Amino acid sequence: MRLRDIVHPNQLHGLTVAELESIAQEIREKHLQTIAATGGHLGPGLGVVELTLGLYQTLDLDRDKVIWDVGHQAYPHKMITGRYEQFHTLRQKDGVAGYLKRTESPFDHFGAGHASTSISAGLGMAMARDAMGDDYKVAAIIGDGALTGGMALEAINHAGHLPKTNLLVILNDNEMSISPNVGAIPRYLNRLRLSEPIQSISENLEDQIRNLPFLGGSISPEIERLRDNFKIVTMLQNKVGAIIEELGFKYIGPIDGHNVKELIDTFTMAHTLKGPVMVHVSTTKGKGYKYAEVDKVAYHAQNAFDIATGKATPSKPKPPKYSKVFVDTLIKLAEHDKRIIGITAAMATGTGLDKLQTKFPDQYVDVGIAEQHAITLAAGMACEGVRPIAAIYSTFLQRAYDQIIHDVCIQKLPVFFCLDRAGIVGADGPTHQGMYDIAYLRCIPNMVMMAPKDEAELQQMLVTGINYTDGPIAMRYPRGNGIGVPLQEEGWQPLPIGKGEVLREGDDVLLVAYGTMVNTAMQAAELLVEHGMEATVVNARFAKPIDLELIAPLAQKIGHVFTLEEGCIMGGFGSGVLEGLMDMGIMLPITRLGVPDILVDHASPDEAKAGLGLTSGQIKDRILTQLTTSETRSPINTN
Amino acid sequence: MRLRDIVHPNQLHGLTVAELESIAQEIREKHLQTIAATGGHLGPGLGVVELTLGLYQTLDLDRDKVIWDVGHQAYPHKMITGRYEQFHTLRQKDGVAGYLKRTESPFDHFGAGHASTSISAGLGMAMARDAMGDDYKVAAIIGDGALTGGMALEAINHAGHLPKTNLLVILNDNEMSISPNVGAIPRYLNRLRLSEPIQSISENLEDQIRNLPFLGGSISPEIERLRDNFKIVTMLQNKVGAIIEELGFKYIGPIDGHNVKELIDTFTMAHTLKGPVMVHVSTTKGKGYKYAEVDKVAYHAQNAFDIATGKATPSKPKPPKYSKVFVDTLIKLAEHDKRIIGITAAMATGTGLDKLQTKFPDQYVDVGIAEQHAITLAAGMACEGVRPIAAIYSTFLQRAYDQIIHDVCIQKLPVFFCLDRAGIVGADGPTHQGMYDIAYLRCIPNMVMMAPKDEAELQQMLVTGINYTDGPIAMRYPRGNGIGVPLQEEGWQPLPIGKGEVLREGDDVLLVAYGTMVNTAMQAAELLVEHGMEATVVNARFAKPIDLELIAPLAQKIGHVFTLEEGCIMGGFGSGVLEGLMDMGIMLPITRLGVPDILVDHASPDEAKAGLGLTSGQIKDRILTQLTTSETRSPINTN
Repeated sequence: MRLRDIVHPNQLHGLTVAELESIAQEIREKHLQTIAATGGHLGPGLGVVELTLGLYQTLDLDRDKVIWDVGHQAYPHKMITGRYEQFHTLRQKDGVAGYLKRTESPFDHFGAGHASTSISAGLGMAMARDAMGDDYKVAAIIGDGALTGGMALEAINHAGHLPKTNLLVILNDNEMSISPNVGAIPRYLNRLRLSEPIQSISENLEDQIRNLPFLGGSISPEIERLRDNFKIVTMLQNKVGAIIEELGFKYIGPIDGHNVKELIDTFTMAHTLKGPVMVHVSTTKGKGYKYAEVDKVAYHAQNAFDIATGKATPSKPKPPKYSKVFVDTLIKLAEHDKRIIGITAAMATGTGLDKLQTKFPDQYVDVGIAEQHAITLAAGMACEGVRPIAAIYSTFLQRAYDQIIHDVCIQKLPVFFCLDRAGIVGADGPTHQGMYDIAYLRCIPNMVMMAPKDEAELQQMLVTGINYTDGPIAMRYPRGNGIGVPLQEEGWQPLPIGKGEVLREGDDVLLVAYGTMVNTAMQAAELLVEHGMEATVVNARFAKPIDLELIAPLAQKIGHVFTLEEGCIMGGFGSGVLEGLMDMGIMLPITRLGVPDILVDHASPDEAKAGLGLTSGQIKDRILTQLTTSETRSPINTN
Repeated sequence: MRLRDIVHPNQLHGLTVAELESIAQEIREKHLQTIAATGGHLGPGLGVVELTLGLYQTLDLDRDKVIWDVGHQAYPHKMITGRYEQFHTLRQKDGVAGYLKRTESPFDHFGAGHASTSISAGLGMAMARDAMGDDYKVAAIIGDGALTGGMALEAINHAGHLPKTNLLVILNDNEMSISPNVGAIPRYLNRLRLSEPIQSISENLEDQIRNLPFLGGSISPEIERLRDNFKIVTMLQNKVGAIIEELGFKYIGPIDGHNVKELIDTFTMAHTLKGPVMVHVSTTKGKGYKYAEVDKVAYHAQNAFDIATGKATPSKPKPPKYSKVFVDTLIKLAEHDKRIIGITAAMATGTGLDKLQTKFPDQYVDVGIAEQHAITLAAGMACEGVRPIAAIYSTFLQRAYDQIIHDVCIQKLPVFFCLDRAGIVGADGPTHQGMYDIAYLRCIPNMVMMAPKDEAELQQMLVTGINYTDGPIAMRYPRGNGIGVPLQEEGWQPLPIGKGEVLREGDDVLLVAYGTMVNTAMQAAELLVEHGMEATVVNARFAKPIDLELIAPLAQKIGHVFTLEEGCIMGGFGSGVLEGLMDMGIMLPITRLGVPDILVDHASPDEAKAGLGLTSGQIKDRILTQLTTSETRSPINTN
């Protein structure tokens, strides 16, 4: 059987180990070719090819449930669950998603994108199964990096307390999350990996059984069963798994994650055990592609590349990424201000903070996948004179929402939140779109919020945030490249808190834009000129407090306001402008442009923006339509 | 020295054990008297009297930092840090707060209210200390219940990885959080408690040393030092602390949390150790008050009571609490629908779900202090045909914000969120005020949100939520008693999703109210009649989707709209009405009444509402003022 023939994972049943290994080879090739062309997650998927095949041979995927944590390692799963033919469309608009999605396949039993959720979801399914009187198997596959996330530990605490609830947790231990792991738990797992491998234990056992005087050299089926039972007992008594055993799990491992036979044998055995079971599988991230095996961080996920050399496909020069400008500027500031400490939660390369670590390791903290802890740690630091700068993606900061409110804002502590990946992120899709941060932060007292219009203003805002010690302050900026404006090398001055700026004047329409949409607003204004209209464009800079002193008189003078933001319009920046003007008794047409109340699917950022009507041309059209039809709008009744 | 003489905790230095025990007795009396009069948290504080005194004798509170997790057990701390004289004002308006507050005392080094934050905050302070070249001590006191919260485990994972960062974690193990603890970690701690106590180990050691042939019967100072060193070694080798040791902490314990001398000796010794240290202290919740020692759940926190009998001070009969109506109705529904599973996160008594547990234990899950896991567990259940009902306080649900977005709403899973304690909570203060849920949920796609106007409508909405399987749905309801309307015994019908109702008609003003404010709006409308004004009152029922079909024509007809909600007005329900009408092109004066962008301090709910201008009388006045001055408002410019 060839990979392309597999449209249902149950077709794996009955295949020999050699056949599975051949399919594994095909999966690796397809995986490598696809990511080399499209970009995406490479190392995670290559590491679990055998794990996927071995596990699925022991499951009935029409009944049993599999939950992949994060889902960026589930490309082998996608290829054997009916998506082989479409796999080349990975992460493209209308193509195969980069993560699992329940709407994409009946075999995607639980979607994800963020880490550490799989044990909770799996336990939920297992408890539902028992409540409904069913008996299918539930397997959750979680990486060692994700295991440091608090919710995974909460789930283990709960599952370990339920000896009657069958749940298989597979620890995919590649000694990495995106970056090398942080913490005592990974160190413990490392000790487990270095302990006597299960393979040699069982081999020894086989020898011992073979050498029992009454058995002779041959092994009958009865003896095989006996051997398997012994094997279980030996595995379970493996002392190094003590913590996991203490927590109520039966522990099996570590086993070789690239040995299909060992995987099948182990999973088969694990399915016979009652209650929560953890199988610890040692895998190599990037397995089978030499460059990825060597540099696991660089090949976790990347842009398109040449397979022969491992080098990125050349692309035309672009302005520097926001994250690069962020960290380069931060390093310059940190050199002269030892109070600055950059904090991240396993996003060192994504946020650029790995460069801070290299330069000033004492001013850098990576807490691992642990956003909640990261923020309260920052709050503690802020109490004692340090300037903590928490660089966390917009959607990952959702994990620390209570800590932002309860530990930082209620106590008005000067923590500086730097929200990377705010707004549309492109190919990563709904779980990573940074749509909600404006709304979810704006409602919290004491918060100050800003967003730069370009990479040069990001430099100024970075200084502004560090300089602001009255309480919490947040800066949001997008994934990807700046717009190419000149950067200042030094001497940045803090911006006045809560003050915007007028970038362009015109009497026909007022565009009030926040962050990345300032540039779009300026482009739209230029397009309007061709239609004989002149727009005033305000760079709001701050979403809280909003500069109503600047905006209100302009709004009253010009009469029609458009707000522009790269975030949800429900409760977002435009809503703040609307609230503010209404509270001042100013009633005039305000059109809020941004992301409506829908999920934004994976696509390139430009495609996504076009789908939302947020290109400059679409905005120009919208303004023209609205202004020319505004007379036909509902009459205004002021009582 | 008497308790009343202590205005600075360093005055404890040099006191004898007998003197400390005498002060402990005084603290207990004052504690009991105060809570009996004011209500509040009783058991937690009584359990840590000796722990507090013993610890503080070994610290310099002018330099060293102490972080109490949650803070509801820190009343002894308050009494010896300058608040003895004011202690009778506990939890009263302008009185001593029920939790720690940095603004209340320089000795409140970190405030809290929610659990599991102290290790993160303490580690942040310890790292800041080291970064700033200082050397004070940092001690975090965390309960065993709070230790199951994911962020505490994240913090342990991080701290255990930093062998050079001195941090003392004191595990206050009373085998309880608010309710008996859930999970594998508490079970493990229980095994630790049942292991050979440290006291007997050290006594044995003393015997052994005493009996060494060359020593004779007397113990010289040199031998005492030797003995102490032995004691450290013995304690550290205490095998049962293996998990904690594996995680990089030095483990000492368990020790008797009511033996002042043992506490002082142990903390003194612990301060000499490098890196992260955990001292495991066994305490008895409610220690010294017999009723509280016996019924630890009931006496965790309660209303005013008679000390002699332990019985609640009689109060006049009140309508049933919302949480009682919630659970009584839920039980009736659960009896006939076995798909229903009630989930809580250590809020069994608060939410009333303990009654569901008693009645239908198979339809009840308490995950412990683990909100993140609770929600993704519910998401997993919802995938497999169960109807999970997550009953969690509004502010505690902040802990699961990412799980709500990422695991539930993005996947459009039918999880029913029941947000107890939504709105003003009274004496618990800012950390517990349920102000943000409308804003933080409204911006998420696929979410449906509702709030009942009274306890009878809560019954209908409970049925509505269970009946709604298209996706997530949330119901918010307040702490405290209903308004006394008749309840239906059975036969509740689901309400149409997104539909409000007109409760009262009048042409002068339109009041659109959500949840608890419907009743206030009706009262205000009655008061307006005396001023010759007739109001239309709409019970919005849903904050998402908002019933604009109902509201818009009324708004256009009546001309001036007031929205009323018990939540933050930034991004809240009123903001949604404003957005909706503006998007329809309807511009008219909309006044949003609710909680402005401030923290609401502890006070009775009525006092808090009065402070926010949210009583019916104040609202009536506001309406009169606004309508009579609306002609003087800014001119409306529609271009």
